[in-house]
Amino acid sequence: MERSSDKVTFSVETPLKLSSGIDLAPVTMAYETYGTLNAERTNAVLVCHALTGDQYAASRHPITGKPGWWETIIGPGKPLDTDRYFIICPNVIGGCMGTTGPRETDPATGKPWGIRFPVITIADMVRGQAMLLDHLGIPDLFCAIGGSMGGMQVLQWASDYGDRVFAAAPIATAARHSAQNIAFHEVGRQAIMADPDWHGGEYLAHGTSPQKGLAVARMTAHITYLSEVALHRKFGRNLQDREALSFGFDADFQVESYLRHQGITFVDRFDANSYLYITRAMDYFDLAADHGGVLADAFKGTETRFCVISFTSDWLFPTVESRRIVQALNAVAADVSFVEIETDRGHDAFLLDEPEMFRTLRGFLQSAAEARGL
Amino acid sequence: MERSSDKVTFSVETPLKLSSGIDLAPVTMAYETYGTLNAERTNAVLVCHALTGDQYAASRHPITGKPGWWETIIGPGKPLDTDRYFIICPNVIGGCMGTTGPRETDPATGKPWGIRFPVITIADMVRGQAMLLDHLGIPDLFCAIGGSMGGMQVLQWASDYGDRVFAAAPIATAARHSAQNIAFHEVGRQAIMADPDWHGGEYLAHGTSPQKGLAVARMTAHITYLSEVALHRKFGRNLQDREALSFGFDADFQVESYLRHQGITFVDRFDANSYLYITRAMDYFDLAADHGGVLADAFKGTETRFCVISFTSDWLFPTVESRRIVQALNAVAADVSFVEIETDRGHDAFLLDEPEMFRTLRGFLQSAAEARGL
Repeated sequence: MERSSDKVTFSVETPLKLSSGIDLAPVTMAYETYGTLNAERTNAVLVCHALTGDQYAASRHPITGKPGWWETIIGPGKPLDTDRYFIICPNVIGGCMGTTGPRETDPATGKPWGIRFPVITIADMVRGQAMLLDHLGIPDLFCAIGGSMGGMQVLQWASDYGDRVFAAAPIATAARHSAQNIAFHEVGRQAIMADPDWHGGEYLAHGTSPQKGLAVARMTAHITYLSEVALHRKFGRNLQDREALSFGFDADFQVESYLRHQGITFVDRFDANSYLYITRAMDYFDLAADHGGVLADAFKGTETRFCVISFTSDWLFPTVESRRIVQALNAVAADVSFVEIETDRGHDAFLLDEPEMFRTLRGFLQSAAEARGL
Repeated sequence: MERSSDKVTFSVETPLKLSSGIDLAPVTMAYETYGTLNAERTNAVLVCHALTGDQYAASRHPITGKPGWWETIIGPGKPLDTDRYFIICPNVIGGCMGTTGPRETDPATGKPWGIRFPVITIADMVRGQAMLLDHLGIPDLFCAIGGSMGGMQVLQWASDYGDRVFAAAPIATAARHSAQNIAFHEVGRQAIMADPDWHGGEYLAHGTSPQKGLAVARMTAHITYLSEVALHRKFGRNLQDREALSFGFDADFQVESYLRHQGITFVDRFDANSYLYITRAMDYFDLAADHGGVLADAFKGTETRFCVISFTSDWLFPTVESRRIVQALNAVAADVSFVEIETDRGHDAFLLDEPEMFRTLRGFLQSAAEARGL
């Protein structure tokens, strides 16, 4: 498949207007594309990444060297068929893989933004993506798709730019972040900010990195991405490279060394301040609140066709949250299909080889493509 | 009611034989009692506390000044009726409220044990309690009762000292700690050990305290003690003392400031190393493993009568864990009643005003008391 890695910088003349009221400029958007834009410019698919994702959805990651995070789904003949669609995956505003975020240089000071970077929202991420589409000369999307925080962006797209989204697939997501999810994020942020190497957010200037705090944040979050059943099946109470308990504080259990590994490897590829900003954006997300508390009003008059997907064992974004979305869409007579997929793999199922999810997306995209004359 | 606050020290001649093979001596057990031991010495009830509990079950806490953690249940006319029963609540081995633990002095060095304290198990806690009963001249317990880690101790009592337990009430507990629970504990331990003020466990010698790490550990754990529904009902997405989002990293949401408060207040009353040791003891708990993998064999020939209680919204010790206990007890034809209580308050329900739990315990204890001729 054709693949490109690119970035675009918008100058101070075209600032990104943030929800906080601040004009952010200049703004760089880093993105990957897969496949070819057709002559009619009607086959563009926007892939929105999750909290710790990035633009390398189907490209080898430049730091870890690992395959893209959604290679299961993107490629020739796959549900997001690169022979047919032009896939765009940008790094979100606030991210740390090339798009403007706290790690980038603040032009006003010549130093990294750090904690002086403005707090951003999901709507800001989407506004940045819309600027990118304008730049690419793509008037509207055939489809916006994403899981978890990616699904939040998809919902925001459908709400703010309904006429630019032909089809939308929000997966394992919610129209607002729950109290429990805010609580887990807050623990992660506190772990980062408690690390003395964080230096009030100025760690780049100090030549340090709050790796321990960031690792703890990642470990906590990682538990929430799996189900109890998946953890039990994978690890149970199996011991790690030993025959008996050590009666010490080393990783006796496999689940402990697995978690430690998750924490340690994460810090190599992710910026601690980006983690603060992006978790904050998710916590702030409440689509109904922007419409007088009525979620249906976020989608009033929508002509987008929706495919909502949830997973039975996802306790971070449980099915009840997807049902709320579906009910709101039904209330405005939207074209919506909803599938709850039986799996014990928890929230992370959206990243995994889930045949029913693939079948569902194939069917949805095929029917939408026909309707759009692709 | 009559109340006493006491401690006893066992000399080097009578060491506590730990599961690790180490003889721990001298050993001090600090405990509270409520009510009066009858002449026949048949009305003793052992109350076993949870991870961050202590002996102050129905006494004002000496540090926080708050009422006892189980005053809802212990007192004249209450389910654990102090007019009728003699309640003993000891601080567990490894604890930090007077019983021997990592904060106490290692007689070999004259310095605090710190991380050189031996790793302990639930069985060790119970062995210490048995020594205390011997000291008090109490041959057997009318009842052993406790929730969460307290319930683990109750199960261990029934298994190791079946002939010394007439009735047993394990509440909101499990016969083995799950992979997910080990994972959450591991995150807490990593948060503590990542705090530079922990100083490899030697913080007392350094005049520091890993308060930030311990607070993060507590915050994570606290989320697991509540249900998503309870968090939503209590806080939802309500803002804290403000009308709109701050677009900053202060506690915007009530759930954030609540969690921060939980973290901050906890460090005043709890020792970080104790937290490491006690979580480790819970992780190590696997009653079946000590009996060839067959849980029923832990209770073979038991004549103890059991009352097992779980709560519908408890996802830390879900009902399925209680059912495993009940099935094992049924397999050995034990006298067991089991109640799953409908509540949305999560794991912490066992500490709260739960009328159905009170009714269940009243009935169970009344019938047991009659059988014992109390």
